[in-house]
Amino acid sequence: MIIDIHAHFTAPAELFAYKSNLLAGRGASVNKFKLKDDKIIAALNEPVHGGTSHLQQLKEVGTDMQVISPRPYQLMHSEKPEKIVRAFTEACNNLTHRQTQLFPDKFVGMACLPQNLGVSPKNSIEELERCVKELGMVGCLLNPDPTEGMGPEPPGLGDEYWYPLYEKLVELDIPAMVHAAGCRCGRHDYTLNFIIEESIAIQNLMKSKVFKDFPTLKLIICHGGGAIPYQIGRFVAARSKRGATPFVDSFRKLHFDTALYTQDALEMLFRWASPDNCMFGTERPGAGTAKDPATGKWLDDTRPLIEDIKALNASDKKKIFEDNARKMFKIKTPVAA
Amino acid sequence: MIIDIHAHFTAPAELFAYKSNLLAGRGASVNKFKLKDDKIIAALNEPVHGGTSHLQQLKEVGTDMQVISPRPYQLMHSEKPEKIVRAFTEACNNLTHRQTQLFPDKFVGMACLPQNLGVSPKNSIEELERCVKELGMVGCLLNPDPTEGMGPEPPGLGDEYWYPLYEKLVELDIPAMVHAAGCRCGRHDYTLNFIIEESIAIQNLMKSKVFKDFPTLKLIICHGGGAIPYQIGRFVAARSKRGATPFVDSFRKLHFDTALYTQDALEMLFRWASPDNCMFGTERPGAGTAKDPATGKWLDDTRPLIEDIKALNASDKKKIFEDNARKMFKIKTPVAA
Amino acid sequence: MIIDIHAHFTAPAELFAYKSNLLAGRGASVNKFKLKDDKIIAALNEPVHGGTSHLQQLKEVGTDMQVISPRPYQLMHSEKPEKIVRAFTEACNNLTHRQTQLFPDKFVGMACLPQNLGVSPKNSIEELERCVKELGMVGCLLNPDPTEGMGPEPPGLGDEYWYPLYEKLVELDIPAMVHAAGCRCGRHDYTLNFIIEESIAIQNLMKSKVFKDFPTLKLIICHGGGAIPYQIGRFVAARSKRGATPFVDSFRKLHFDTALYTQDALEMLFRWASPDNCMFGTERPGAGTAKDPATGKWLDDTRPLIEDIKALNASDKKKIFEDNARKMFKIKTPVAA
Amino acid sequence: MIIDIHAHFTAPAELFAYKSNLLAGRGASVNKFKLKDDKIIAALNEPVHGGTSHLQQLKEVGTDMQVISPRPYQLMHSEKPEKIVRAFTEACNNLTHRQTQLFPDKFVGMACLPQNLGVSPKNSIEELERCVKELGMVGCLLNPDPTEGMGPEPPGLGDEYWYPLYEKLVELDIPAMVHAAGCRCGRHDYTLNFIIEESIAIQNLMKSKVFKDFPTLKLIICHGGGAIPYQIGRFVAARSKRGATPFVDSFRKLHFDTALYTQDALEMLFRWASPDNCMFGTERPGAGTAKDPATGKWLDDTRPLIEDIKALNASDKKKIFEDNARKMFKIKTPVAA
Amino acid sequence: MIIDIHAHFTAPAELFAYKSNLLAGRGASVNKFKLKDDKIIAALNEPVHGGTSHLQQLKEVGTDMQVISPRPYQLMHSEKPEKIVRAFTEACNNLTHRQTQLFPDKFVGMACLPQNLGVSPKNSIEELERCVKELGMVGCLLNPDPTEGMGPEPPGLGDEYWYPLYEKLVELDIPAMVHAAGCRCGRHDYTLNFIIEESIAIQNLMKSKVFKDFPTLKLIICHGGGAIPYQIGRFVAARSKRGATPFVDSFRKLHFDTALYTQDALEMLFRWASPDNCMFGTERPGAGTAKDPATGKWLDDTRPLIEDIKALNASDKKKIFEDNARKMFKIKTPVAA
Amino acid sequence: MIIDIHAHFTAPAELFAYKSNLLAGRGASVNKFKLKDDKIIAALNEPVHGGTSHLQQLKEVGTDMQVISPRPYQLMHSEKPEKIVRAFTEACNNLTHRQTQLFPDKFVGMACLPQNLGVSPKNSIEELERCVKELGMVGCLLNPDPTEGMGPEPPGLGDEYWYPLYEKLVELDIPAMVHAAGCRCGRHDYTLNFIIEESIAIQNLMKSKVFKDFPTLKLIICHGGGAIPYQIGRFVAARSKRGATPFVDSFRKLHFDTALYTQDALEMLFRWASPDNCMFGTERPGAGTAKDPATGKWLDDTRPLIEDIKALNASDKKKIFEDNARKMFKIKTPVAA
Repeated sequence: MIIDIHAHFTAPAELFAYKSNLLAGRGASVNKFKLKDDKIIAALNEPVHGGTSHLQQLKEVGTDMQVISPRPYQLMHSEKPEKIVRAFTEACNNLTHRQTQLFPDKFVGMACLPQNLGVSPKNSIEELERCVKELGMVGCLLNPDPTEGMGPEPPGLGDEYWYPLYEKLVELDIPAMVHAAGCRCGRHDYTLNFIIEESIAIQNLMKSKVFKDFPTLKLIICHGGGAIPYQIGRFVAARSKRGATPFVDSFRKLHFDTALYTQDALEMLFRWASPDNCMFGTERPGAGTAKDPATGKWLDDTRPLIEDIKALNASDKKKIFEDNARKMFKIKTPVAA
Repeated sequence: MIIDIHAHFTAPAELFAYKSNLLAGRGASVNKFKLKDDKIIAALNEPVHGGTSHLQQLKEVGTDMQVISPRPYQLMHSEKPEKIVRAFTEACNNLTHRQTQLFPDKFVGMACLPQNLGVSPKNSIEELERCVKELGMVGCLLNPDPTEGMGPEPPGLGDEYWYPLYEKLVELDIPAMVHAAGCRCGRHDYTLNFIIEESIAIQNLMKSKVFKDFPTLKLIICHGGGAIPYQIGRFVAARSKRGATPFVDSFRKLHFDTALYTQDALEMLFRWASPDNCMFGTERPGAGTAKDPATGKWLDDTRPLIEDIKALNASDKKKIFEDNARKMFKIKTPVAA
Repeated sequence: MIIDIHAHFTAPAELFAYKSNLLAGRGASVNKFKLKDDKIIAALNEPVHGGTSHLQQLKEVGTDMQVISPRPYQLMHSEKPEKIVRAFTEACNNLTHRQTQLFPDKFVGMACLPQNLGVSPKNSIEELERCVKELGMVGCLLNPDPTEGMGPEPPGLGDEYWYPLYEKLVELDIPAMVHAAGCRCGRHDYTLNFIIEESIAIQNLMKSKVFKDFPTLKLIICHGGGAIPYQIGRFVAARSKRGATPFVDSFRKLHFDTALYTQDALEMLFRWASPDNCMFGTERPGAGTAKDPATGKWLDDTRPLIEDIKALNASDKKKIFEDNARKMFKIKTPVAA
Repeated sequence: MIIDIHAHFTAPAELFAYKSNLLAGRGASVNKFKLKDDKIIAALNEPVHGGTSHLQQLKEVGTDMQVISPRPYQLMHSEKPEKIVRAFTEACNNLTHRQTQLFPDKFVGMACLPQNLGVSPKNSIEELERCVKELGMVGCLLNPDPTEGMGPEPPGLGDEYWYPLYEKLVELDIPAMVHAAGCRCGRHDYTLNFIIEESIAIQNLMKSKVFKDFPTLKLIICHGGGAIPYQIGRFVAARSKRGATPFVDSFRKLHFDTALYTQDALEMLFRWASPDNCMFGTERPGAGTAKDPATGKWLDDTRPLIEDIKALNASDKKKIFEDNARKMFKIKTPVAA
Repeated sequence: MIIDIHAHFTAPAELFAYKSNLLAGRGASVNKFKLKDDKIIAALNEPVHGGTSHLQQLKEVGTDMQVISPRPYQLMHSEKPEKIVRAFTEACNNLTHRQTQLFPDKFVGMACLPQNLGVSPKNSIEELERCVKELGMVGCLLNPDPTEGMGPEPPGLGDEYWYPLYEKLVELDIPAMVHAAGCRCGRHDYTLNFIIEESIAIQNLMKSKVFKDFPTLKLIICHGGGAIPYQIGRFVAARSKRGATPFVDSFRKLHFDTALYTQDALEMLFRWASPDNCMFGTERPGAGTAKDPATGKWLDDTRPLIEDIKALNASDKKKIFEDNARKMFKIKTPVAA
Repeated sequence: MIIDIHAHFTAPAELFAYKSNLLAGRGASVNKFKLKDDKIIAALNEPVHGGTSHLQQLKEVGTDMQVISPRPYQLMHSEKPEKIVRAFTEACNNLTHRQTQLFPDKFVGMACLPQNLGVSPKNSIEELERCVKELGMVGCLLNPDPTEGMGPEPPGLGDEYWYPLYEKLVELDIPAMVHAAGCRCGRHDYTLNFIIEESIAIQNLMKSKVFKDFPTLKLIICHGGGAIPYQIGRFVAARSKRGATPFVDSFRKLHFDTALYTQDALEMLFRWASPDNCMFGTERPGAGTAKDPATGKWLDDTRPLIEDIKALNASDKKKIFEDNARKMFKIKTPVAA
C-alpha cells in the first residue's frame, strides 16, 4: 500500500471567493463558510493543474491514500486582522474534514493552524484540539514564519516561544509538519521559501534543547530537509568542533518526507536521514506535476525512482511507502491488501 | 597542479583592531590602515583554527595555489556611515594584494567591494577598477544582500539595479564570486545564510534576462550552488510548465566552486552543473577545517573525494582542479610541473 | 426607461479563486484570468445575496439598464506587489466587458483602475485607455485612497497629483465615479468608509481649483455625496466668511448618484445638488438589498420613493432616471420605448 | 427658556500664550495657569468672531443659558509629553469653572479630559472627578481619537478599552459629549473630522455591547450625528440582514445635539433620533456664526428653524430647547420664567 | 553707548493665541496676524518675568539699544504642516519690525526664518530677503536643528546643505546668529539644548571648509560658544595631531555674544575668542533675569562684570559694548552721546 | 603621590580582533576571549599614540598610579544581539583585571558594564558584582546613553529607571564614573558627545531627587563636568527662581575628574566644584596626548598647570592629586613615599 503523506486538498473556487471576501471586508463582518457536498466532490473529479482530476492523478501513479492538508501558500498568515485568518483556517479545516468523510479510504486529514503575524503560538492550540478531537485529524502544519517574510522575524523553532504548541503536540501524540506558508519577499518566491524555512528550522532546532525537553516530539521536515542534506558537511564540521553529539545523530531525531523530484536527491536523503525517518510524499497534484523534458515522465511520480534505489532493501521501501506513515499517523484502515 | 579558488586570507589581529576603531569612531576620523610585512608573514605562519598555520594547511592537503579574498563574514556591509565600510574594504584589498606580492606562487588575489546598505552597486566600481588595474586582482566577491539581513531587501541579482557592476565585470573580463557577508538574522547564522543567499541568487538569475543581456558575464556561485542541486526537480518542473529552455541548460550558464564537504554532494554538483562549470574550492582554513568524527579526516580535504568519483574521467578532474580556474582567472604562472 | 448608474457585477467564484492565487503567490508568477461564457451567464442567473439572481433583481424593480463596474471593496488597491493588483484589475475589466457583450441591452461597462498604494495615478492611464478605446467603457471608478486606510494618506483629490488622470478623463470625455475600495481601519468598515471618503473628496475639491483648471471634468460622487448635504450648513458658513462663490454653487459642479435608501435623504440630495446633477443609482444587488423591517420592502427599490417626491416634476424625474445618465455616458441604445 | 448645550468658552489670549509656552517648553518646567477675573470678564464682552461679544451673541438669538466647554480643536491631545496636555486641560477646566462662577445664570460647565496619544482613558478619571465633584461640572467632552489623526488609531468607542471611563460616567451620573479635538490629516480639516469621528463613533457603538453593559450610560453625539441620519438606510439594511434589533431602535439609545445649520437637516435628525433624544445646541459663537448669503441671517441662529418645523409639537420643542437638557444635566436654576 | 545684541522681544499674549490657533487648525485655514500698536506698546510697559517691564529693565542696567528677535524656543520649527510655521514666522518678523518702528532708538530688528523639519534651508531665503530689504532687519537667527530633537538630525552647519543660505547671507552682507529653537528631548531642556547645539555647530564648522568657501560669512555663536571655550584643550589636541591651522586661529573666525552670567566665564571667552570677536549680549529680560542668591544682583546685569575684567583695556571694552556690534550690524543711529 | 583616576587601558590588537569576530558573527557562536600575559605586557611597552609606550608615558609626566578602565568609545553598547556586548564587556574586564594583577603598583581597575540599547540597567548588576567582588575593582563606568545616539533616548540619570544600579553602587560602596561610549550621530563625534552627555547628566541629576534617595551615592562626572561650569550662571538663575537650594550647593554633591587641558578651565572647575570634589585625571595616553602648538608641551601633562594655580593651597593640591582618590577608591597601597 502506498501512502503519500504530503498532499494538499483540491478545493472548489467557492473557498477562495470566501477568502477574497474575508480579505476585502477586513473583518467588518465574518460569516462561516458553507459548501455543499456536490461542489466538493465535483472539484476532486474535474481536471486540475496536470490535466486530469485530483482523484485520477492518484490512480495514475498508484497512490492508495493521502494525508491531505490545505494549500500552505494560500494560508495568508501575515494578513490582519487575525480573525480573517482564523475564519479561513476553520473553513479549510472543515473542508479537509469533509473530504476525509466523503472519501474515507482515500484521505486522512492534517490540520492547518490559525497562526498569525505577531500572535503567539498559544492561540493555535484551541483549533488544533478541535481538529484532532472533533475532526479526527492526525497531524498539523506548522509554519515557522507567520510573518511570511514581512518581519520582524519570529523566534526560531528552537526557542521556548514555541513550547506551548510542542506540549500540546506531545499530549495529543501527533506530529507537526514544518511547512512555510506564503512569502512576501521580492527576490524569491514561496517555492524557494519553503526550502529556506526548512533549512533554518533544522539549524535552529539542532542548536536547541527542544528534543531534550520533548523527547517524544515528532517534527516532519518537508521537501527532504531543505538544503541540509546537500550541505551537511558544513554542519558536521561545525558540530565536530565542539566535541558534541555528531550532527548526523541529532539530525536523525527529525522526520522527513520525500518530496524531492530527482533520484540522486532521494538517495542522498535516505543516506543521511536513514529510511527509518523518511515517509513517501509527493504533493501530487502540485509543484512537481510537470513532465520532465528529458524523460517525458511526471516529475512527481517518484515511486519508481525510490523502488529503483539499490541502497534500499524491501523493508526500507515498505517503511518509506507505508509503515512509517502508519505508525506516525496511527493509520489503521484500510487493511493493506 | 591544484588550485583552490575559494580561500580567505589569514590576517594579523591588527586588521581587526583597525576595524574596531572604525566602528567605534563611526567615521569621526578615518585613517589609512598600515601594516608591516613581518606581521603579515607571521600571521600566515602561526597556528590558526585547525591547529597548524595557513601555509602549512595548504601543504597538508597538497594545494598549490589559492585565490584569496578577505573573510566575507567580516565585511560589515550593513554598517554606517559608508566611509568606514569603504576604509575597511580598502584595507582588506591592500592586505590581500600584499600577500600576493609576498607569496606570488601561492596566492592570487580576489577583491572585496565597498558594498553598503542602501548604497548603489555603482559605488563599488571605482574600487573594483583599482583592485584589478592597480593591484592585479583576478575577480571579486559580490554580496547579494549588503543589508546583511537588516532589510529592506535589495533587488535580486537578476534586476537591472546590478547592471552597472555587470557591465564593468564584462569590460574587465573578470568573474564575480557570489558570496554573502554577515547576517543579522536571529534564527540562523552567517554560515547558513551563505547557502540561502546563493539559492536566492540562482533562482533570481534564472528568472531574469541577465545572461541574455550579458552573454559573457561570469558568475561563480559558492558552496556548490546552495540548495539548488538537491532541490533541482522543483525548478525543472516549474520551468517545464512554460515550455522554455530546460532549467538545467540555464543552470549551466553559472559557474560553481566545490566547497562541499561530502562526496555525494560533490557528485550531485558535477551531475547537474557538469565538470565544465566547476572549480575546486575548499575555504581551507575555514568552516570545513574540522575532523569528521566518523573518519577522523579533515572535512575540507576534499581532493581525495573528488579523485575517487567514478563518474569523472581524468580530463574532468583536471578541469576541476586546474584548467577551469586557469581559464577563468587567466592564471599563467607558475607553469605546472 | 430606467438606467441604474451605480451597479457592480455579479462574478463567478472563479474570479475570486484567481484573486486568491494572486495574493498567495505575491507575484511569483502571474497568469491571465480566463473564464468561459457559460460560467459568466450562470453567475448572473443564480440566486445571490437577496435571494434571487442578479438579472431577476433588475426585473423585480423595473431597472432597464445598469452601468456596471467591479465590486470596489474587492479591488485590493493596498496590496503589493503592484502587478497582482494590475492583473486583478485587468481580469475585472475583461469580465465587465464580456458581460456587456453577452447582455448588450442590460449592461454598459465602467472600468476600474490599477490604482496602488504609493503608485502614481499616471500608472492608471494605460488601462483606462484600453477600457475606453478597446472595450467600449463609458467611465471609470476613482478611489481617492489607494492605501485603503493604511496610510500615509495620499494627496486629496484637489491636488495636482491627480491632474494626469483628470487630463485623460477630459480628453476621453468620460466621467470618473469617486468610490473608495477596501478599508483596513479597525474602528469602521468599508461601508462607512465610502461615506467618509466621499465627504473628504468633496471638501478637498471644493477648496481646490480643479474645476477652474478642468472646466469640463465630470466627477460623480457616490452615495448621494457622503455626509455633505446633511452637514451643508457648516460648509456654507465656512465659505460665506470669505465672500467667495457661495458653497452651494460650487457644490453643483459635481454630479451625484442616488444610492441612498430613505426618502428624506433623496429629497435632501435633490434640494442641494439639484435634479440636474443627479442620476438614479442603487447598487442593486448590493448593500441595500435587504427588506426594511418597518415596511417589508426592499430598501434599494428606491424608484417609487423618488417618483413620490412632490418637489420633483416629471422632467426632473426623467432627468434623474434616464436623461442625465444618457448624456453623461453617451448611451444611445436601446431606444427608449 | 432656551438652553444651548453645545457651546465653547471665549477665553482671553493669555490662555493661549500659556499653551504656547507649554508647547515651546515641552514640559521642561510646567507652571500653573493663573488669570485675573477682569481679563475673563473682558474677554466675554469684547467683539469676537461674528462681530459682537460672546454675551451679546447669546442675547441676539435669545439663548438663556449655555453648557460651555473649552474649544475642542485647541485641546492638543496628540502632543507630548503628556504633562503639557494635562496642564492645559486643567487650565481650561479652571477657566470654564471660573466663568460659571462669574456668570452663574448664563453658564454651566462641561469638562475636558487630559486624553493623550497612547495614554489609557483611565488616566482621565482623576481630572473628571475633580471637575464634577469640586468644580460642579455636569458632563464632559470625550474625544474618540486622541491621536488627532496621527495614528495608530485607538480602539473604537465600542471597545472595552473605554470601559473604565464609562464606569466612572455611570457612577457620577453625567453624560459625555462625543467630540473630536484637532486633526493632523492633510486632506480634510478638523471641521469635517468632527463629522467623520461622530459617524465612526456611532457605527462602532451600534456594533458593540456597550449599552448592554452600561444601560444607563449617556452619550451625546454632536453635530446631529455626523453622517448617519442621512445615510441611515445603509445601516438599516446591514442590520436587517441579521434579524436583530432594528437599527433605528438602537440608534435612539444615543443622544444628539442640534448643531446643524439647515432646516431639512434638523427635520431629518428629529425624524430618526426622535425629539426625545435631541437637545438644542449651536456652538454660537463658532463655526456657524456666519450670515447665509441666501438669506442674510445668522446660520447658527437655528431656533426659528426648529420652531418652524411642522412635525414638532409644542411639547417636542420644549423638550428640545429645555427639558431634555435640564434632565440630562440636572440643571435646576434659574427657574424658568 | 551699550548695545545688547542678544535680546528677544516681549510680545502681547495675542501673538501666542494666534500661534495656538495655527497649531490647533493645522493649516486648515491660515489668516494673517494683525495687532494694534497700543497692545504692542502696552506689552513693553507691563511687568514681565523679573518684575518690571521690558523697557524698564533696559534702563535699570543701562542698555541703550537692543538687537531684538523673537523668542527662539517659541519658533516651533518641528511642527507640521510647514505653512503654520511660515505664518508664525511672518507674524513674529512683522511684530519685531513694528517694535523697531515704534521704538527706533531702542530696537534694531533681527529676523527669524521659516525653518522646518525636513525642509531645505532654501525655503528660508525669500522671507530673509523680505526682512532685510523691506523691514530693514540687520541679521537673522539660524537654527542648526529644525527637527527640535525629533530627528533624524539634519546635516551639520559645515555641510553644503546650508550653502544656499550662506550665499544669501554673504550677498546681503548680514550675520546669522546660531541659536536653536525648541527641544523635544526628554532628558534635557531647551536651555541646555542651546548650549549643546552651539557646541555641535562649532565642531562641525571647524571641521568644514565653510570659511574657505565663504570668507566673508559672519556667524555669531550664542551663549559664549556653548561648551567649547571650557573644553578647548580637547579640540586643540585633536587639531594639533594633524599639523593643520591651530584650532584657536580657526575658532576666531567665528563671532560670539557674551550671554554668560559669571565673570570667569566671560574672561575665558575673551581669552580664547579675543575681544575682537565678542559682542555684548544678555537676553535680558530672559533666562538670566534672576537674582544671584550669593550677591543679590541680577545675574544678567553683566556689564559691571565685564568692565571689571583686568585683562581688557578700554578699547577692548568699547569694542565689546559698542563698536563690534555697530560694525557687524551697520548701526549708525543714534549717535552716541 | 600622583593618582590619575581617568585612564583607559592599552590593549593588544587581539582584543579587537575578538571584538570584530563578535560583530561579524552577530552571536552565532560566542567564545570566551583568552590572551597570554606576554601579549598584555608587550602592549603596555610598545609605542602607542603619542610615540612612547603607555608605561613610559606615565613615567614622563610623573604619574604613579592609574585607575584604568576599557576605552569607552569601543564599548559598542548599541550593538545587537546583547550577548556580543556582554562577551566583549567580560573580555575587557578580565583584561583590566589581568593588568592590575601584572602591575599591582601601577594600576587599579574600574569595570565597564554590559549596558545595551533597550536593555534595563538591572542587567548590568551581575557583572558589576563579579568585577568588584571577584576581580577587586574599585568603581565602574556608567554610560548615560547606551543607544549611542541611535535613540530613542533612555530616561535621564535622574529617573528611577537607574535606581537598581544606584542601589547596588551604594551597597558595594563604590563610585560610578559617568562616561558615554560611542556616538552614531552624524554632526558631532564621540569626543564632543562625552561633553554633551556629561552636561545632560548633570542637568538631569540636578532636577531629580537622586541624592535625596541615595545620600551616599558617589557619581564622578568626567571631563570636568562637560559644559556646566562655564555655563553655570544659566543654571544658577534657573534655580534661584524657585527659591530652592542654591544650584552650586547641589552641584557639589557630584564628583569630578580634571580631564581638562587648559589652566583656566581647571581653575574654573575648582572654583565651582571645590577642590574637595575633584580628582586628578588625564586620560593619558588618550585624547589629550598631543603637543600644544603654542607651547610644545603635552596637553595632557596637566600636573604642572594645577600645581601652578594660585587659588589652591598645598592641602587642596594633595586632595586633588591623591587624597580624594584614595578615599573614593579606598586605595591603600602602595604607601606614599
